[in-house]
Order: sequence, then C-alpha cells, then structure tokens
Amino acid sequence: MSKPAPKKVVLAYSGGLDTSIILKWLQTEYNAEVVTFTADLGQGEELAPAKEKALKLGIKPENIFIDDLREEFVRDFVFPMFRANTVYEGQYLLGTSIARPLISKRQIEIARQVGADAVCHGATGKGNDQVRFELGYYALEPDIRVIAPWREWDFKSREALLDFAEKHQIPISKDKRGEAPFSVDANLLHSSSEGKVLEDPAVEAPEFVHQRTISPEAAPDTPTVITITYEKGDPVAIDGEALSPAALLTKLNQLGHDNGVGRLDLVENRFIGMKSRGVYETPGGTIMLAAHRGMESITLDRGAMHLKDELMPKYASLIYNGFWFSPEREMLQAAIDHSQQKVSGVVRVKLYKGNVTVIGRESPNSLYDQDLVTFEEGVQAYDHKDAEGFIKLNALRLRVLAKRDGQKG
Amino acid sequence: MSKPAPKKVVLAYSGGLDTSIILKWLQTEYNAEVVTFTADLGQGEELAPAKEKALKLGIKPENIFIDDLREEFVRDFVFPMFRANTVYEGQYLLGTSIARPLISKRQIEIARQVGADAVCHGATGKGNDQVRFELGYYALEPDIRVIAPWREWDFKSREALLDFAEKHQIPISKDKRGEAPFSVDANLLHSSSEGKVLEDPAVEAPEFVHQRTISPEAAPDTPTVITITYEKGDPVAIDGEALSPAALLTKLNQLGHDNGVGRLDLVENRFIGMKSRGVYETPGGTIMLAAHRGMESITLDRGAMHLKDELMPKYASLIYNGFWFSPEREMLQAAIDHSQQKVSGVVRVKLYKGNVTVIGRESPNSLYDQDLVTFEEGVQAYDHKDAEGFIKLNALRLRVLAKRDGQKG
Amino acid sequence: MSKPAPKKVVLAYSGGLDTSIILKWLQTEYNAEVVTFTADLGQGEELAPAKEKALKLGIKPENIFIDDLREEFVRDFVFPMFRANTVYEGQYLLGTSIARPLISKRQIEIARQVGADAVCHGATGKGNDQVRFELGYYALEPDIRVIAPWREWDFKSREALLDFAEKHQIPISKDKRGEAPFSVDANLLHSSSEGKVLEDPAVEAPEFVHQRTISPEAAPDTPTVITITYEKGDPVAIDGEALSPAALLTKLNQLGHDNGVGRLDLVENRFIGMKSRGVYETPGGTIMLAAHRGMESITLDRGAMHLKDELMPKYASLIYNGFWFSPEREMLQAAIDHSQQKVSGVVRVKLYKGNVTVIGRESPNSLYDQDLVTFEEGVQAYDHKDAEGFIKLNALRLRVLAKRDGQKG
Amino acid sequence: MSKPAPKKVVLAYSGGLDTSIILKWLQTEYNAEVVTFTADLGQGEELAPAKEKALKLGIKPENIFIDDLREEFVRDFVFPMFRANTVYEGQYLLGTSIARPLISKRQIEIARQVGADAVCHGATGKGNDQVRFELGYYALEPDIRVIAPWREWDFKSREALLDFAEKHQIPISKDKRGEAPFSVDANLLHSSSEGKVLEDPAVEAPEFVHQRTISPEAAPDTPTVITITYEKGDPVAIDGEALSPAALLTKLNQLGHDNGVGRLDLVENRFIGMKSRGVYETPGGTIMLAAHRGMESITLDRGAMHLKDELMPKYASLIYNGFWFSPEREMLQAAIDHSQQKVSGVVRVKLYKGNVTVIGRESPNSLYDQDLVTFEEGVQAYDHKDAEGFIKLNALRLRVLAKRDGQKG
Repeated sequence: MSKPAPKKVVLAYSGGLDTSIILKWLQTEYNAEVVTFTADLGQGEELAPAKEKALKLGIKPENIFIDDLREEFVRDFVFPMFRANTVYEGQYLLGTSIARPLISKRQIEIARQVGADAVCHGATGKGNDQVRFELGYYALEPDIRVIAPWREWDFKSREALLDFAEKHQIPISKDKRGEAPFSVDANLLHSSSEGKVLEDPAVEAPEFVHQRTISPEAAPDTPTVITITYEKGDPVAIDGEALSPAALLTKLNQLGHDNGVGRLDLVENRFIGMKSRGVYETPGGTIMLAAHRGMESITLDRGAMHLKDELMPKYASLIYNGFWFSPEREMLQAAIDHSQQKVSGVVRVKLYKGNVTVIGRESPNSLYDQDLVTFEEGVQAYDHKDAEGFIKLNALRLRVLAKRDGQKG
Repeated sequence: MSKPAPKKVVLAYSGGLDTSIILKWLQTEYNAEVVTFTADLGQGEELAPAKEKALKLGIKPENIFIDDLREEFVRDFVFPMFRANTVYEGQYLLGTSIARPLISKRQIEIARQVGADAVCHGATGKGNDQVRFELGYYALEPDIRVIAPWREWDFKSREALLDFAEKHQIPISKDKRGEAPFSVDANLLHSSSEGKVLEDPAVEAPEFVHQRTISPEAAPDTPTVITITYEKGDPVAIDGEALSPAALLTKLNQLGHDNGVGRLDLVENRFIGMKSRGVYETPGGTIMLAAHRGMESITLDRGAMHLKDELMPKYASLIYNGFWFSPEREMLQAAIDHSQQKVSGVVRVKLYKGNVTVIGRESPNSLYDQDLVTFEEGVQAYDHKDAEGFIKLNALRLRVLAKRDGQKG
Repeated sequence: MSKPAPKKVVLAYSGGLDTSIILKWLQTEYNAEVVTFTADLGQGEELAPAKEKALKLGIKPENIFIDDLREEFVRDFVFPMFRANTVYEGQYLLGTSIARPLISKRQIEIARQVGADAVCHGATGKGNDQVRFELGYYALEPDIRVIAPWREWDFKSREALLDFAEKHQIPISKDKRGEAPFSVDANLLHSSSEGKVLEDPAVEAPEFVHQRTISPEAAPDTPTVITITYEKGDPVAIDGEALSPAALLTKLNQLGHDNGVGRLDLVENRFIGMKSRGVYETPGGTIMLAAHRGMESITLDRGAMHLKDELMPKYASLIYNGFWFSPEREMLQAAIDHSQQKVSGVVRVKLYKGNVTVIGRESPNSLYDQDLVTFEEGVQAYDHKDAEGFIKLNALRLRVLAKRDGQKG
Repeated sequence: MSKPAPKKVVLAYSGGLDTSIILKWLQTEYNAEVVTFTADLGQGEELAPAKEKALKLGIKPENIFIDDLREEFVRDFVFPMFRANTVYEGQYLLGTSIARPLISKRQIEIARQVGADAVCHGATGKGNDQVRFELGYYALEPDIRVIAPWREWDFKSREALLDFAEKHQIPISKDKRGEAPFSVDANLLHSSSEGKVLEDPAVEAPEFVHQRTISPEAAPDTPTVITITYEKGDPVAIDGEALSPAALLTKLNQLGHDNGVGRLDLVENRFIGMKSRGVYETPGGTIMLAAHRGMESITLDRGAMHLKDELMPKYASLIYNGFWFSPEREMLQAAIDHSQQKVSGVVRVKLYKGNVTVIGRESPNSLYDQDLVTFEEGVQAYDHKDAEGFIKLNALRLRVLAKRDGQKG
C-alpha cells in the first residue's frame, strides 16, 4: 500500500547531525514543508543553535518551535510516576521512557496548530523509543501520518548518511566523522548511555561514559544531609526552601551528582524483544525514590502500600513500553493518586559516596506518631490476648489442611 | 475455655535471661517437663552455655536439643527466597521472617520425637514473630498445644519478671538489670535492632545499634571486587571457590561487613496492624540480591522476569506474615523455581563503602550473548520494518479509542 | 482486661426473636440504654412491627430509628461493586457482604447523633458478618465500644436462650421453638440460606430453601427479552423506562424471579478460615452482571478491561472480608470508576428458565461500531502486512530462548 | 529484504477449498515441495477425503501426514487449561486458542522429520490465529521460514481466488461460490462462528449459526443428572465409567449438546487490537468449568484458590495471545498444577435447558468434611472468642487511620 507523500511534517528536531539529515531528507524525499520542534527537557544543551541551524536548512521562522517544557515534564510526568515508586525490572527509573509521551503530545499540538499532516522522529528501528513516540502520536491523533526515517530510508551505512549530509551542506563536526563509542540520551531526570563500548555486559562500563555523576570514589569524604518536604506525594521543598518541580529536580540532580549518587549499569529487556545494556544516571531521581518511600513509610496505611507495590510492576511496564496515554495507565494513576492525599511531611536524607539513606521522617499525618500508646488509655487498648485469636483464626485453614494431608514437617 | 495443663513442652531456648525465665515458669506454672531446643542459625553466639544453663535449671540431658541448622537454613529457606528477589515493602530482606519457619519445623519434629504435647516460644504479644512461630506449628501439627508466655503470664512489669528470676536462682547479668536501649535478633542472614533508642522515626539511628556492618564512612577507600558463581538461581562459589550455602553466606557477610554494605533503617507495617521501626543489617543478603538480579538479567527471558516481579510482593508478604508453610507460598515457589533452571553463570560485583554494583555478568546460558547479530546472517534477520507493524497493531486500540473520545492531547 | 459497662448502645435490631433477646440482654446485663436501629435494605419484611416490638421492650420512642436505606444501598454500594463485575471465588455475587458496611455506617451515625458509646450486632461468632460489621465500626469510629453478644454471653444452648426470652416476656412464635432447618439473610440484592439441611455439600439443596426465585423448571416456556440502559457503568432504565437504583433492582429481581434466574449453590471459604455451604439467590444481580459485561464488551478498551479483570479478585476479597472502608478498596474503586466514563448504551438480554443471555448491545460510545472499515479509506488503513512485524517482534524473545535451549517441541 | 524461496513446506491442510488453493499457490509461486499435515482434533470431519485431495493435487504419498491428535489435545492442552478455570475476558473458554499450539508443534515435528525449511498456515491477516500459529513455530524452531499466504499473495478478491482455483482444477463446491454467511472453526472443545451475519453486535445471532448445541428452548423438559469423577484436577470418569480424555470430552459434548449447554455470544478483544464478535459453543467445556470449580470448592484451600483466581486472567491472556510455549505460561502452569494434587473426588451436576448446576460434591480429600466439629473435642476447639482478637487486630490499622483522618462515615 503506497501512501501519498506528506505535505507538512512536524519533526522532533535536536539540532544535531542526525535530525538535520532527517530534516533535509524530508525535504528532498517528500518535498515536504518541515516544521521543527525543539524542546528543552533539561537535556543540558543550548536551544539557540537549533534555531539557527533550522533557519540555515531553510525552515521558515514561523515553522520553528522551541519550547521550554521542563516544568511540565517534571510536574505532569516525572512526579506522577514517582508517586508509584516506579522501577522497571526492579531497578530502572525510566528516565528516557517518561520523556517520550510529552514530546509526542507537544508534537501533535503543533501539528494541529500549523495544520501538518505528519510527524517525524529520529529514533532508530531497533529501540523502544520509536514505539513510545508513535504510540503517543496515535493515541492523541489517530490518523496522523508517522514518518520514521530510520526505518524508511535507503542509506545502507553511516558513510552513506555522511555523504548525503555533505552533499546538502549539513556541517559535520569532526567527532561525528567516526562512529561514536556510545550514544547518549538525556533530560532533566536522567542521562543514559549505550552502545559499542558498553556492548559486552561482562565488561565494566568505563568511567568516561558517565555524564551526570561523579563516581562514588570521587565524591567527598563527608556526607551531605538534606531534608525534602513532601505535599500529597510530591516533593515541594529542599532544606525548607520551596522550589518549582523543575528547580527542585535540578537541585537534587546537583546534590546527587556531587555525591556520586544514581548510577545504574543494567541489562534490560526491550519491548521489541531483545536485551540491551545501558548505563543510566538518575541522581535526583534516585534520591526521590528513597525519600518518597521514606515519606510513605509513616503516612501510608499497609493496605494502600501493599496494593501500590503489587500494581507497580505493571505500571512500570506500561510506561516503559510507551503506553502512557492508555486507559489502563490512567486507571492505575487514579488508584495511585488516590493514595497520596496524606503523603506529606519531611524526610531527612543522607547522601554519601553513592549511598542515599533515609535517616529521619516526620509528618503531621503520621500513622506512626499516633502511637499505639494512645490506645492504652482507653477502653480499646491493644490487648496482647487479641493476638491469640488473630493467630488461631489465621491458622485455622492451615490446621484443616494439615489434618487432611498428614505429616509434612 | 480452660485447657488442661501441658505435660511436656518443647521450648525454643536461647539460654538468655528471658527464655530461662520462661523455662522456669513452665515448670512452676504447669509443672511441665521441659525440653529445650537451641538452634545455631548463625546468630553468632556460643551454644555450649545454653546447654549448661539448661542443665542447671533442671532439664534432663536427654531433653536438651542443640542443633546446628545453618546449612539447612541457607539452603532450604534463604536461597529459595532469594530466587524471587524478595523484598518486603520495597526494601526489607526478611532476615527475621525467613528463620521462623525452620525453628517451628524443628520444634515440631522434636515434639514428635520426645512425645511432647506442647511447644513454647519467647516472642512477645505485639510482634510478628508470635504469628510466624505459631502458624508454622499449626501448619505442621494441627493439634499441638501452643504456649506463648508473654501473652499468658501475669507479670506486670520487668521488675516482676526479675523478681521471679531471682526467686528461682536464674542468674541475671548486670546489663540486664536496666532496660536495654534496643533489642536484637540475629541469624546468618541478618541482624535486626529495634525499640527504645530507635522509637522515634524522625531521629537517626545511632551508630552503636549496628551489629553486622561497619559504616560506609568507616569502610576502606578502595573497592573490593568479587565474582559470584550461580547455578540454577543459587550462588555456589565466590571468586571461583566452591562453598556450601552457609559457608558462602558467611563469607559474603564478612565482605559486606568490611565494606559497610547492607544497612537499612525502615518503618514497616507489621502483620498485626501497627507500624514499627527497625534497623536491619543484611550484608551478604544485600550482595546476593544485586548479584542475583545481575545473573537473571542475562539468563532470564522478559516474560519470566516480569511475571516474577509481579508475583514478588505477594510472595514477600506471605513470608513476612508467617505463611511459609501454606499452599499459596508453595505454588509461588513452584513458579519461581521453574524459572531458575538456566540462571547460571558468573556475576562480578564491586563493593565500596556501602555500594554494591554489578559490573559484569557472563553465562553459558546468556540470552544477551546469543546476540541478535547472529540473526542478521540468516533468513530471519531482524528487519527494521517489522517494528512498523508491531507499533501499528499495538497502537490500533488506542487509535480506535482516540477516534471515539476526540482530542485529548 | 475488664471493660467498663457501656451506657448507651445502638443495636442493629430486626424485630425478630434473636435481636429481641439481645436487646433485653443489653438491658439486663449492662443496664444500658438501648437505641434500636432497623433498616429497610429490601429484605422484604415490614418495619412497623419492629417499632412496636421495640416499644414493648421498653425502648423510648426517640431511641427507635427506622430507616429506608434501599436507594442508598443500591446506589452507593451495589452499583459501585457491579462496575467491577465482582464475584468472589469465581461465582458469589456478595449479596450479604455488600450490605454490612452500610449498616455499620448508619449505626455509627446514629451513635454519634444520640451520644451512644457502644454499638451492637447480632452476628454469630463463627461467621463473616461479625468481621464485616466490626471492621466497619472501627474504620469509622475507632474508639467505639463494640458488643457482640453471641461471643460474650453465657447461654449454652438454644434452650437457655428461649428460657431467657420467656422469662422476659419476649414473644416466641411457634416456629421458633424448634431449631430452624436453615437460616436466611436477605436484602434487595439477594437472599442467602445456610445451615442444617444444607450442611452436607454432597446433598442437593432442597427446593424449599429458595426464597427469591422459582426454579428454572417452574419458569415459563417462553423467554422474556428486556433492554437495560446503562450510563457510566450503572443501569438506569429497563425497557426504556428510567428507574431509580432501588426501583430498577426491584424490577430486575422480579424478572429474574419469574424466569428462574440467579440461583447458586456454593461451598465457599470464610475469612475466619473455614468452609461453609450456602444457597444464594441473586436474580437481579445475576442479570446485571451479564448485562454490564455486555455493555463493557463494546465500550471498554482491552487494556482497561484486562486490568479490571486482574484487579477484581482482590477487590472481591476485600468486600467479602469486610474491608469496604479501607484505603485499598477505595484505590481500586478509583481505578474502576475511572474506567466507566464511557460505559453507556443499551444491552438486550434474554431471560429463559435460568439462563441470562446477552443478545444485543448498542452504544454511542461503541469501540466496535467505529468499525475498522472506517480505517480502510484513509491513509492509515489496517494493513495485513503489519501483522507480520507484530508477530515477528512478539516472537523475538521466544526465538532467542529457543536458540539457547535447543529443541523443545 | 527479499528472502530465498522455500524449498519444502509443511502446510496445515484441511482438505477444504482455501487450503487447497494455498497448496497449489505454494507449488506455483515458489515451486516448493509441499508436505500436507491434516490433524483430527475432533473438528468432526472425515480425514480420508483430505488425503485423496492431496494426492490429486500432486502431493507424494510420503508427504501426506494425517494424525489423530484428539487424545493429546485433550490430555496435554485442554485439561491443563481447565485446571486453572480459565476464561478470557470473563467468559470465553478459549476453544480455538488452545488448539493452535498443538498444530504448530506437530507441524514443526514433521518439518524436522521430512527436512522441510518452511511451514505454512491458512489463517488470515486480521485474526488471532496467525499470531498463535507463528509464535508456536518460532518458539519451537526459531529459524523456521513461515509462510502466511493471506498476508503475502496478490489476490485482490474472492473472485480472483476462485479463478485461480478453477485454473488449477481445484474443485469448488457450489456453496463455496458465494460468500459464506459466517465462518466456522471447530475442534473437540468447541466450535466458533463469526463474520457477516454476526457482524452487528446489536443483532441477535441467528439460530442457524450454531453447530454443537441445540437451543435451551429445544432441549428436553427434564433434567439430566450426571456425576464426574476427578483425579488431581482432571476429569477421569462420567457416571462411574472411566474414560480416556478425548472420550470423556466427547461424551460431555454430547450431554451438553442435548441439554442446550455451552452457547456464548461475545464481543471480544483480539490481540491484534480490534474487537470482534463471535458465537462460541463449548458444551463439554462449560460442564467441565462448573464441575471443576465444584470439585475445588471442597478440596482446595482458600489461599490456593484465591491465588489461582488472581493468576487466571494473565494465564488466559497468554493462551489467547498465543504464548502457550512461553516461560511465563509454564511458570503459571507449574503453580497451578502444584495446587491440584488433592483435587480428586466426585461432582454431581444437573444439566437442564442451558443450565449447568453443581448439586453435590464429595471427596476423600474434602476440607469441608473434616468438619470443624472434630476440633471441638480436643484442646484446640474453635473458640468464638478467638474471633474478637482476629477482628481487633485486623481493625487496628483502620482505627489508626480513622484517628488520623477524622470522621468519615
């Protein structure tokens, strides 16, 4: 089924070599009008050059969109995810996964605004990100035309790509000539490194792949102690200073960086079916995970906490696989958010050479502070003898079983 | 309903003051013949004094049982639990919980052997351990009489207990005169501290409560790197040296201790309904959790891994709550064990000032090493274009929803 | 620990012999002021006699509360539960369980209003209802004094109870002299029968235990076809006629009754650890379960539906066990309710001699009507070739496994 | 990526028009040697004609495989699935899904035996079966070449297909000239009907689509009562007569058929993302589901039963989606099978005009028969007062919550 050529395409544009090639390819292959969208998600790069490069590649000024999405990213995506103590495969804090739905959402908004009939991303054909971008696009705009150049074009090699770039006067910085020893994705939550020098999971990740943290060994010999204030499940202040979501995460990142916190070397299972190895650095997120658990430990009832723990692996897989905009992710979010109404208070955290340790928690909503001592004065005091009945009835079915099945022990 | 007095009681006897008082109380209260059972679970105490004390308290030699259960403990309880990457409430490695069923089991075996009609433990009426002991007893011997002195006797105070001890010539060491600043439970997997100085969760745990680890700050400035060899989900060698289960865990404990690994300061939810705060030290277990996940990361398929992650919280709660000998724990174990047939290989782990980092994994069963590269030569090579269909069909239901529900983004 | 006598007690009072005895016992045992609470939950009994009897037993008029709770019962308890397609142990529609929290709630409200310090129910010590009532009381009023006469008093036999009744001039109808062949609980959702003639699960339940339905054999030879209209997951009209929640369920009960619909003969597992056998009749509820599934089948996305199915068993257990007023039940409800926004439309149902068959479903929100045909005209048509990629990537991990593990088939 | 032509192909061949066309197309398109595989799975068709037709189409006798797989089908696929009380989306007994892995397995075995490099099936590109067949192939033989003609060939219409058939002397029976009003799949477990006359889910399924059952209305006016004997979770005898798995299911099918049992009209969610409507008839399976639940109700402990109920939806989805040969399905099976060791005994079932009612259950392993009465004689009798402690400790966390959160009721 051959599709008609797209007329106007919103491209997720970083300003880098690869998306510049894609930009040019969209123009030459489809003769399409290209709209560039460059987002600041806290990846730590200047956006101004992206604008300049887009202009040089012939993009009309009204077709260049540059947005600072950092606050929205942290407030509406990162924080809701952290309410669930989310980790994928027991360990990964989903730093890449959680950024994708926001990019998709904004691209679709721009497409509507400028009347584009297609969107385009620069993710490769072997990774998870193509899935995440495209599930986002389709969930929000079901008939949008999606262009995934890495799956479509005919370039057979890096060489061919560079030839194309040269032919179209796309500047190629020296270090892009050869193949990079690893590739990086970054945003305000994390940076990830993968490929080449990391390909053998038996070999330790070299120090130089790390972007966001110093090593525990290089971190100071004295601990840093901070307090984090929570309101309804979200952090709102550090050491008593109220901060916006993005400012707070930025500060935690710095603290984590300085104390060697948040490195993870992981072999994970991609949605598309293969295993891959990555090095993740999530300094602020690693602190938030520990602190949020600490806050919940005194403010959340056991029933709510255990239910959350049971739901979390599925919730994590949904985000990892790109199903942020799905009814089931929203249902789980509704349950999780319902549990966070009283998760407020202050957590004290010690950072030291890679360790994040909760050393204190306080809350006006504490279920611990309302000590059982208070029960002992009233008619309803905790009665040690209650435990006997509790045990006897919990044991009843096991005893009936044992009578039927005979000696086991 | 008043029950007939027990005639012969198997007491879980540590040799300490409290269980000595219980021993004497059983004799005076019930005029019962007491059989003492003292187990070496790796708690780090000499067992010889327990024998001596029992003799002094009038126990007949044939009624004194002293068993070294360390190998059974690690092989049949600790290792199976670690196959599931088990943590309770996201963090606790269940060091106390997992020891209880073994004690219950051995007590019941002895009761059968000596013809006792009752068993007795020294756990208090506000904790989890009473539940764990007694569910174990009842599951194995449904009509056994269970005596829980702390819930039964009339001593109103520590003072009254000590008076009773003095009256019966039970020696009281000086430090037991006053109330202890915290209480400790220990076995080969962990030590736990709780009570008094730890009661306020807002206050940092003092250094002196720690038993099994030096602090990260006190640990050496250079990392220790070890390899752990796995066979079918269980560790079998360290640095190439084959070790029995208990010997292996003992060695990991030493390594963890020396590198400040395995401390946890936690507010948790007890089965009996209240929150409590404990400090746990699980040096070897903390290393095993990381190493096992590392081993699984290259040998376990995604489907198996995700199912395990979904089942784990329930499995952890069952162990925490004392349901080791229950059909549902056994069903989960059957599923977990089924997954471990190929979890063999070697993991390299770096220990450094509290950090446990997997830095390499190798396996003859690797699902990573059988690189997708191998596919590229045959007719079944990974085709980038497959991803399009994969995404399109995963997106289909979301697109239908979006058509129905209108603009969302 | 002996508790002080209660001064003023709100009793869940049916007007029957047993709760009349309890009423008198509260007066004589505790010299307590008794407040009677009699609720119309659709059990099918007149409430006027209860008032009269209470007066005769010396209850002050201002202490007699008689409430028609039928609408609240169906709207706030039954309907929310049916949104989840709730069945306990695969079959039981929870007719008794779901009524208990409402009774608890209203009793506590009255206790607050009249300044009572205690509440009392007539459930026995071997059943689930004591748990459900009391968990409700405690969850709403944590320091309330709870009186459970069946667990407290000293009557050793039915005889002794009747003697007490006679002594206190409580009228005993003839049929209460002997022991009943079975006991019944009923409300607008269902009736349950258990005990004596039903005690042997090998023996068929006799026809005479049934209260709410004629047998399939006795039902008409021609089917009855009705339509049920749903709005956001709840039924709102039958055959186009809008009805209040209680009126709608009443009508469905009649329809079910007449067509022999809704009988269940079940051996179930009680929360307190034993198995019991009951006969349940839930005529309207059985129709609602089928109809709601039918409505969801065209309006609910797969992701939402499967998540609901996975959550349901836990949700059912929570209600069965008495945890309606718990954070985890509320979290699950939040997730479930979130899914019901578009579950609106009309379901056609055929009732015939015990069978309930959905024979048609229509909805403005149908995800089926928005046929994939509509896709075929656009650029995004369903492409058969997409299936290949979908399959290939779903198969990828299985192929890698097969390469590792060798021949299996 | 153009693949080399397959040389020898094992085709799942029914002998019908469509697979005959496929056979010929494989010969003409690829010049491939075709091996036909025709299985008797109880679909109710003679296999002899298939052999004859294959010979006529030029297949060598040694390339024609005709296998009676009925016993293997029921024993190794149907029964294990029924141990889990498996229903997809609350209702569907998975009759089609469960047959696919066996066909895949046998096809791969034949491919190995004859040295074929490819397998081929006749499932279309919009359904679930293509996924199920191919996931099975790949899981067992990862490098096998899979041919799915409906996704590959260029026939644009039914007309074109028939032209091809005529051109190649494939006989076309008259009724195949026009388009069928619905399509059917059948095996020993069920028959399914879908398409055309069933496409509008608002319209009742016509009587003539049913294959395996008479309607409840047409069934006899008197009930049929049977007993089914279970051993370790599987049915082994009817009315005391021991029967092989396939013979037993055949008999249950007849009984179900005669009593109008087992019809289901369902809108379901396909794995590939769309909703479809089908009419399923599973007479024997419907009886087995009820009977197995009845057997479990007295022989299975609550913990095991509830865990099974929680795992079932995932297990059902795995089978529906084609993941029979996956580690996670096998893990779940291990857990399920572990629970069935004592699920033995006899269930009495009444069949009447569409109803299947369990009216009696007996077992030497009953957990109900070992009545709690037996406890009352020993020291461990059920003590009503135990319930108080049980409730108090279950309520504890709810009370602490209520104290914190203030009035709710």
